[in-house]
Amino acid sequence: MTGAAVLRTTGDHVLSLTLNRPESLNALSPGQRDEIVRLLSEASATPEVRAVVITGTGRGFCAGADLRGTGTAGERVAGDVARTLRTGAQRLIAAVLDCEKPVIAAVNGTAAGLGAHLAFACDLVLAAESARFIEVFVRRGLVPDGGGAYLLPRLIGPQRAKELMFFGDALTAADAERLGLVNRVVPDDDLDRTARAWADRLASGPTRALALTKQLVNASLDTDRATAFAAEAAAQEINMTTVDARDGVRSFVERRDAEFRGR
Amino acid sequence: MTGAAVLRTTGDHVLSLTLNRPESLNALSPGQRDEIVRLLSEASATPEVRAVVITGTGRGFCAGADLRGTGTAGERVAGDVARTLRTGAQRLIAAVLDCEKPVIAAVNGTAAGLGAHLAFACDLVLAAESARFIEVFVRRGLVPDGGGAYLLPRLIGPQRAKELMFFGDALTAADAERLGLVNRVVPDDDLDRTARAWADRLASGPTRALALTKQLVNASLDTDRATAFAAEAAAQEINMTTVDARDGVRSFVERRDAEFRGR
Amino acid sequence: MTGAAVLRTTGDHVLSLTLNRPESLNALSPGQRDEIVRLLSEASATPEVRAVVITGTGRGFCAGADLRGTGTAGERVAGDVARTLRTGAQRLIAAVLDCEKPVIAAVNGTAAGLGAHLAFACDLVLAAESARFIEVFVRRGLVPDGGGAYLLPRLIGPQRAKELMFFGDALTAADAERLGLVNRVVPDDDLDRTARAWADRLASGPTRALALTKQLVNASLDTDRATAFAAEAAAQEINMTTVDARDGVRSFVERRDAEFRGR
Repeated sequence: MTGAAVLRTTGDHVLSLTLNRPESLNALSPGQRDEIVRLLSEASATPEVRAVVITGTGRGFCAGADLRGTGTAGERVAGDVARTLRTGAQRLIAAVLDCEKPVIAAVNGTAAGLGAHLAFACDLVLAAESARFIEVFVRRGLVPDGGGAYLLPRLIGPQRAKELMFFGDALTAADAERLGLVNRVVPDDDLDRTARAWADRLASGPTRALALTKQLVNASLDTDRATAFAAEAAAQEINMTTVDARDGVRSFVERRDAEFRGR
Repeated sequence: MTGAAVLRTTGDHVLSLTLNRPESLNALSPGQRDEIVRLLSEASATPEVRAVVITGTGRGFCAGADLRGTGTAGERVAGDVARTLRTGAQRLIAAVLDCEKPVIAAVNGTAAGLGAHLAFACDLVLAAESARFIEVFVRRGLVPDGGGAYLLPRLIGPQRAKELMFFGDALTAADAERLGLVNRVVPDDDLDRTARAWADRLASGPTRALALTKQLVNASLDTDRATAFAAEAAAQEINMTTVDARDGVRSFVERRDAEFRGR
Repeated sequence: MTGAAVLRTTGDHVLSLTLNRPESLNALSPGQRDEIVRLLSEASATPEVRAVVITGTGRGFCAGADLRGTGTAGERVAGDVARTLRTGAQRLIAAVLDCEKPVIAAVNGTAAGLGAHLAFACDLVLAAESARFIEVFVRRGLVPDGGGAYLLPRLIGPQRAKELMFFGDALTAADAERLGLVNRVVPDDDLDRTARAWADRLASGPTRALALTKQLVNASLDTDRATAFAAEAAAQEINMTTVDARDGVRSFVERRDAEFRGR
C-alpha cells in the first residue's frame, strides 16, 4: 500500500521516484517517507542507478508531512517531538543529502513545509512555472522542520530565509529562481522532459566523481578551509582509482570526448 | 538625556525604537547604544512585546558610532580597542541577533559603518528609496567593526562583501536589495506604513515559534548539519509546549485559521 | 624560463602578474604555479606593494593545470594524488587567499578548472565581456580541485555550485556576474584600464586595514560568531597601532580626507 504511494521507474540508469497521493497534494505519510529513504539508500548502492529524479503527480509536489494522525502536543511526553523528528523528517532530508547519486527535484506544483525542504535538499531543483514554495510552518504555530533553518540560509542567506519563514507566504517559481532556491523554471509542459534531459546528462557522467563532488559541496558550508582542503585531497585520491577518471584524463591527452561507465 | 535620544513607543504588541539625534545623522553615542541594548533585552523578557522596529528620525538611519570623544589611537593602551569593541559595538549587534522577538530595520536614510551593521543584523530590513548604505570604515583607515565581516559574507558572499568594504562607496537602496542586503525597498513615504504592517503581521504570529526560528537561522551558518539538526529537534520540543503550537496544529485539523496569543 | 611564463610589472604600488603562455591558453605549468605562489608571498612582505592584479595574455585567463606530463592514474601510488594537490593546486589557492595585499583577478578570457578557482579565490573579480568560466573537471571524470567545492558554495550557494560542477558547461561573464561569481563585467577593451583603476584605489588605501579586513572576511564563513567577534577585536587592536588608522581618525575629526601611507 505504501509502495503504490511512491511510483518507481528505472531506465537508462535513471531512477524516478514519483509521490503519488495527488488527492492530498502528496502530503507525506510516514510510510511514503520511509519508502523514499529506503529507495535512496538502495540507489546509492546500486551501480546501475546513476541519477535520481523526485517528482509528484497532480497539482502538488509535496504538501509536507501529513499532519493527520499526528495528534496534538498535549498528548506527547518530553522527548517525543525530537525523536519523531530525528527518525522522520530529518532522516528524509539526510537521505537526500547523503544519496551517492545526483538527485534532481522536478517540482510540479505546490511544495509546502517539509515538501519544500525535500526539494531544497536535492542537488538540482527544476520547477514548473505554476509551482509554489511555502514555508507553511508559521501558519500553524510551528518551527520549520526537516532542516529548513539549515538549508535555506545556505541557499539564500539568513535575511531572505527569515522573510519566508516568518510570513509563510507562497513564493512563485519565478521568485524562487530569482532568490536562488531553484536552478531553472520551465513551462509546466516541459518539466518532465527537462528533468529527464538533465538526469540523462548526469547519468552519462562520471558517477563516482559526481558523488564525491556532491559530498564535498554539501560538507563545504559545514567546515573550514583546512577541513575542506583535506576532504578534497581524500576525494581526489579515491576518484583517481576509478576507470572513469583514468579514461577521462586519457581522453584529454588523446583529444577525444570521454565515455564514462559509472565506475 | 540618553533616553530622549532613543524614542520608544509601544502599541499593539509592537515596540518601536527611533534613533533621535537627527542633527548628527543619528551617529550613535555610547549612551544611545547602551539604551538600545537595554531595551532589546527587556523586549525579550516582556510577553506583551511581540515585534520590534528600529528606525531613525531625519535624513539618517544611523551614521555609525559617534567618533567624537573617541580620542586617537596614540592615547590607548594595549587591549583598550578590543575591550571597547566587545562592550560596545559587538554588544549592540549581539543584542539585535539575540533579541527573542523579530526585529525589523526600517532604514529611513543613510546607514553608515556601525549603522549599516545595525541594520544588517536585524531579521528583516526595509529601506526607503533614498536610503544609502556605506561601509565607511576604510575611508578612515579602519577595519569594519560591529561584526561587519561576520554579517556581510553571510548575506552576500565574501566577494561582494570585500568590494563594499575595500572601497567604502555609498550603495543605493535598490542596489542593496539586488545584492540581498535588504528585503524590500519602498518609496520614502511608505516606509513607516510598511514597517508597521510587517511588524503587525509578526506581532500576531506565534511569538515563541518565531523566536526559535530566528535562533535556528542565526545559528545555522555558524554550525554543521549535525549541530543544526540537534538544535532544530530541541527547538521543536520547546515549541510544542506552547499554547500557540497546540492551537496551530488543532486549527489545521479543524480547517480554520489559527489565532496566536504569543505564548 | 618559468620566469618568462609569468610577466611581472610593478609601479605605483601595484604588482601585476600576467600569465604568459598564450599558446596553451595559460594552462598552468608547475613552474608557473610555484612562481605565482612565491611572488604573492613576497608581495605580502613588501611594503611597497599595496595591491596585486592577476591577468593573462591572449584568449585565455588560465586554462587550469597543465595536464600534460600528469601521467595517468594507473602509475600512481596511494597518497600521490593528495600530496600533489596539497603542494600544488591547494597551495596556489591558499597563496591568493592568504596574500596580505588585496588581489584583483582581471579575467581576460577563458578561466577553466583550476584557472576558474584561481579567479574566484581573488578578493575582487573583474571579467571581460568575452570571458568564460568552466568547471571543466567533470568532462574529464575528475573532482574539482584547488578548493572549488570550498569557494563556490560560499560565493553562490550549494545548488548553483553543483549545477556548474555537474555539467561543466561554459558560463558567460554576464551570467557569472548575475550569479555572484564576478564583481563587474566590462567591455574587453576596458578590462586593463578598469583593473588598473581599481588597483590604484586599493593601493592608495590603508594597506594594513585592507589586509585585516580581507583576513576577517575570508575567515568569516569558516567560523562562528564568537570566533569572528574575537578575531575582529584582535584585528582592530592591531590596526589601531598603524599610522593610517591614527591619521584616518584624525582626518575625520579635522573634517578632511585621509591620506594613507600603507603603514
